[in-house]
Amino acid sequence: MTTDMALEPAEAHLRGLLSQLGLDAEYVRAEADTLWWRTAAGDVPVDDFVGGYGSLVLGHNHPAVLARARELLDEQVPVHAQFSYHPYANDLALALNRVLWREFGVDRPYSAIFANTGAEAVEVALKHAGMARGAKVAALREEIESHLADADPDLARRAREHNEGRFDVPPVFLALEGAFHGKLAASVQLTHNTAYRLPFRGLGAQARFVPADGIAKAVKAERTTVLDVVDGRLTERDLPVIAAFFVEPLQGEGGINLLDADAAAQLRATADAVGFPVVVDEIQTGFGRTGTFHAAAHLGLLGDYVLLGKALGGGLAKASVTLIRQDHYLPDFELLHSSTFAKDAFSCHIGARVVELLEADDGAAYTRATERGEALTRALRAVADEFPTVVADVRGLGLMQGLEFRDQSSGTGAVADLARTGLLGYVVAGHLLREHHVRVFPTASASHTLRFEPSIGITDKAIARLTEGLRAVCTALRDHPDTLLPPG
Amino acid sequence: MTTDMALEPAEAHLRGLLSQLGLDAEYVRAEADTLWWRTAAGDVPVDDFVGGYGSLVLGHNHPAVLARARELLDEQVPVHAQFSYHPYANDLALALNRVLWREFGVDRPYSAIFANTGAEAVEVALKHAGMARGAKVAALREEIESHLADADPDLARRAREHNEGRFDVPPVFLALEGAFHGKLAASVQLTHNTAYRLPFRGLGAQARFVPADGIAKAVKAERTTVLDVVDGRLTERDLPVIAAFFVEPLQGEGGINLLDADAAAQLRATADAVGFPVVVDEIQTGFGRTGTFHAAAHLGLLGDYVLLGKALGGGLAKASVTLIRQDHYLPDFELLHSSTFAKDAFSCHIGARVVELLEADDGAAYTRATERGEALTRALRAVADEFPTVVADVRGLGLMQGLEFRDQSSGTGAVADLARTGLLGYVVAGHLLREHHVRVFPTASASHTLRFEPSIGITDKAIARLTEGLRAVCTALRDHPDTLLPPG
Repeated sequence: MTTDMALEPAEAHLRGLLSQLGLDAEYVRAEADTLWWRTAAGDVPVDDFVGGYGSLVLGHNHPAVLARARELLDEQVPVHAQFSYHPYANDLALALNRVLWREFGVDRPYSAIFANTGAEAVEVALKHAGMARGAKVAALREEIESHLADADPDLARRAREHNEGRFDVPPVFLALEGAFHGKLAASVQLTHNTAYRLPFRGLGAQARFVPADGIAKAVKAERTTVLDVVDGRLTERDLPVIAAFFVEPLQGEGGINLLDADAAAQLRATADAVGFPVVVDEIQTGFGRTGTFHAAAHLGLLGDYVLLGKALGGGLAKASVTLIRQDHYLPDFELLHSSTFAKDAFSCHIGARVVELLEADDGAAYTRATERGEALTRALRAVADEFPTVVADVRGLGLMQGLEFRDQSSGTGAVADLARTGLLGYVVAGHLLREHHVRVFPTASASHTLRFEPSIGITDKAIARLTEGLRAVCTALRDHPDTLLPPG
Repeated sequence: MTTDMALEPAEAHLRGLLSQLGLDAEYVRAEADTLWWRTAAGDVPVDDFVGGYGSLVLGHNHPAVLARARELLDEQVPVHAQFSYHPYANDLALALNRVLWREFGVDRPYSAIFANTGAEAVEVALKHAGMARGAKVAALREEIESHLADADPDLARRAREHNEGRFDVPPVFLALEGAFHGKLAASVQLTHNTAYRLPFRGLGAQARFVPADGIAKAVKAERTTVLDVVDGRLTERDLPVIAAFFVEPLQGEGGINLLDADAAAQLRATADAVGFPVVVDEIQTGFGRTGTFHAAAHLGLLGDYVLLGKALGGGLAKASVTLIRQDHYLPDFELLHSSTFAKDAFSCHIGARVVELLEADDGAAYTRATERGEALTRALRAVADEFPTVVADVRGLGLMQGLEFRDQSSGTGAVADLARTGLLGYVVAGHLLREHHVRVFPTASASHTLRFEPSIGITDKAIARLTEGLRAVCTALRDHPDTLLPPG
């Protein structure tokens, strides 16, 4: 028994790595876009551009969210009242429907299954889509078997031989290359990064990953037919193989990659033609950060399922929701799926307040996200223009921006070594924190790309401190990379 | 587009069923073991014996938990500070270690991976155990291949032929008949109830379900060997097939079934002999409800993994944890698994306060749970004794009790019809709520068994109101069952 482990049972190994990079800061207070770092010399304010990986569109500890939380505590709301009527869940679901109707110019209702985390929302979508696809296969099988029972025995035998085993093929889930849809045992199968996925591949249905410019082709490759006898003739019928296609309108962990509008249109058209649902994962992108409530509104990509999480909790509560268009919805799912913590009064009321805050004043928050996003982008582009040999790209939408470094792994020295093991972004993050009191992180699966997801209240001064730090980093990467490393 | 769905997007179908049984109450306030039901005649206090399915060992909105929550809001704790040092997570994990060491008389440290819900804790265990088993298989394969490279070619060929494909067999997860381990896409595969599981069976690794009196036999049936060449001879080696055995010391959703102490001992001995981990799921049973912090302490069953959830959140926060004994722990797991919402300051501090409240005054809370459990059990047994033709059994530990009705499905009439469709417990719950203002529910997978999981503050008066209601229910079931149904 090591003493360290006994004293530090919660992820000591991770802390050790963070410590090596100077990233094991202890934060003691948080407000708006500032975290206070406890140091020997006192608490130091840090500009937070990580923003809870998208959770903090309103910033840390937003006063209106805290005020609502205090009210809920004072009112002694029933947090645990499972299997009763939850009007607050309906109110929140209806508010989310209204935003969706407005942004996409539709009026079709979406049913809402609440969960607690983004990954759980993915699992709900996965389960619902798997169940819906299973029901379609069962209905087709029953229909064909009733036809075969009345058909010419020889044709029926040939159809049965062909169909042998085909109705039992497992569902196919498709996702894009670079996709990130969570890390639970089934949802991680939809996350492209092999490091996260492969150690667990025996634990869930495998997804297939598709390049954004090859969606129609990939769908076509899944086509599987069964034989029916119709009007006395052997007839091919399409088996519903694909349970769902999961897509982020703007990939977060994959490296801040905006889905191409043509690819989005192709996905929508292919899904409609073949008959599988599109699951739009807005867990990181939703809630206004990109200038619209849904990032997919920029692409005109209306999902059959829409997943929301992170910012739904207002930076305090834990909540997520899977919205499913009503004409794809299986009401019986409600009897099969449940969660002790989900649909609770506390997180639903907080979520409703978040939506109110964003929708207030004709959507001033979205305008603000666009304007602040432009200020951030201008500042990042100026850095890129100044250091063309260091920065490869700046990209994103609104307040979800990425800055991609050029390959730093070909040199000699410690930073090049670290870049080769995928740690460049963390080295830079450590330097920015120590020397500039700016908090950033790379995207999880593209660690040479820094992400920036501050709140709609991010100030010009904070952006200036960020770019000052980035200029120092770029200068070091160009001239003397190893000065980025922690001393000693 | 139906108006209903547009107005009520959050589980309208479930609400419709609850409404038919008179269970769609709207609760507006909660304190201790009371929920206030909004009715046309005003807010009516209801005695809550559901207790958030085990989450409310301290009752609804416990003043000390609310006070801690207010402090955390006032202090502006950093809820979102991912990838930094979280001393509060260590403090909570260490407090949980200390309780475990005391109750089981050991001093081995357990590492802690925090998550947000019980189902997520199961998924973490599943992923970790799957990864550990994969690593063992890979190590064995590598060792054997190095032996075969140097062995007699004929023996090596025979070994390779035998081993073909065996290293790629998927992991086997075992669980007990009646098990409930959550409803996410992989964890639901460990939940025995076919209604919950089968619609989703293509989505996760299949578990095998074992009767409690056949554990050793079931494990033996999984034995798979591969061939090695050792000392010039073909030698059988055991392939690590079983990734984990999941077990609840006292099944909740399965019908309040206490694991037999002999079965527990057999499980522990078999796991040690064969070399797979025992995952003790204390999500519903943990945190003192049974008179000890861990229900498994009654059985002397120390898990290699221990899962905690529900009450860890104090009835307010959402938190869970997977404890893994350090000598089974893979530190690299920390780099592969993460969650935006997990390990946050708010829920860790709330969890720490819950542990403090339970451990205070030499564990007075556990003594209280035992004493209140005895009072509840005596009262339930008196009902059973009075109605031997109606009540089959009363069973459980402490404040986790079940009352099983005899089969009511053989009669004629509407209640017998409902019993045949598994709704007896819900009919009884509706009657108790409407007529006696007492809230109970059946266990999810044994719906003729009512469960009772009140807080350690449950009063004699509330127990008396419960048993008065149960007497009325038993009288009706014996004499005129259909009077239990809602009017009209």
